[in-house]
Amino acid sequence: MMDTVAGKQVSNGVNVEALLGARDALSKAPQAAKFTWRATCKWMHGTHSRTSVKGYYGLGQEQSHRTEFTFDMDHPEVFASEDNGATPVEMVLTGLAGCLTAGVAAVAQHRKIQLRSVKATLEGGMDIQGILGIDADVRNGFDGIKVHFEVDADATREEIEALVAQSQKRSAVYDILTNPTNVTVSVN
Amino acid sequence: MMDTVAGKQVSNGVNVEALLGARDALSKAPQAAKFTWRATCKWMHGTHSRTSVKGYYGLGQEQSHRTEFTFDMDHPEVFASEDNGATPVEMVLTGLAGCLTAGVAAVAQHRKIQLRSVKATLEGGMDIQGILGIDADVRNGFDGIKVHFEVDADATREEIEALVAQSQKRSAVYDILTNPTNVTVSVN
Repeated sequence: MMDTVAGKQVSNGVNVEALLGARDALSKAPQAAKFTWRATCKWMHGTHSRTSVKGYYGLGQEQSHRTEFTFDMDHPEVFASEDNGATPVEMVLTGLAGCLTAGVAAVAQHRKIQLRSVKATLEGGMDIQGILGIDADVRNGFDGIKVHFEVDADATREEIEALVAQSQKRSAVYDILTNPTNVTVSVN
Repeated sequence: MMDTVAGKQVSNGVNVEALLGARDALSKAPQAAKFTWRATCKWMHGTHSRTSVKGYYGLGQEQSHRTEFTFDMDHPEVFASEDNGATPVEMVLTGLAGCLTAGVAAVAQHRKIQLRSVKATLEGGMDIQGILGIDADVRNGFDGIKVHFEVDADATREEIEALVAQSQKRSAVYDILTNPTNVTVSVN
């Protein structure tokens, strides 16, 4: 890393040594790098559903989060729904926000840049003529996503820009959204 | 809809009449169909972030959810993190689950199929050699997503399969994941 300053102490709360150790270990045992992430969703009523996240597979064995995380999702009142949770597309923006932000913190730690604050504002445009089936030429999903970062850090503007660019380069969710992913759906 | 049975009463809790009304109204006023969904993320510590979802734009004006929804995200303990929330990639699976499940309920209501229960189980495979930068030929995101639905409904197997297929066809998140979406990132 060109930006590493030898001997400088920074504390962003990311254990970069452990990550570099994992990179070394997994490059010798690539099978352990195969992860499976899971979610289980139950329909509640109307467009309201509840999804649970707890177990996953990685490092060659079953793993578990410390607790189960549950998420309610629904459509809003303007779609004649009850608004019992965020919309599914807002959950996607949330995932992108969390992925890029964690990446900024990890890369900053690696480059010995002390962060003071990081805020990301995301918006995704969507023409709902797609999902309503009005116009087959309008896609169902976002017509684009804009992410804006405000980073306050002990670094130059160029270093901050490079930080965000590197996070983007290594982001799982950024890749999932910008490149096609195969989704297979089966029933019963 | 070929599957509509005249006069049959079903109650899945989706207001299909309002959605059909919206489709009529928006096909005459397409500008009102342009929505913008938003999320705001704050870095907490390490890889832990917190995202808020409340306001959005649609039907020609600012809109708001009834309450603000907040989501903590983090990396798990096997990544030397504190596991203060689901991972960002699990949030993406959650969004897909909620989108397809709401779609199943809406299409079932439209086709007058009474649902008893709907459960979706999702998994996304990921080789973390990508995000760790071990192998540039390994993508950062999912190498594929599998969704499995168990639907208990007053319908034949073929009708249930058609229900899920139609939900998939109109799903915003399914489209976002399976097709490329432009994401632009700016700083400060």
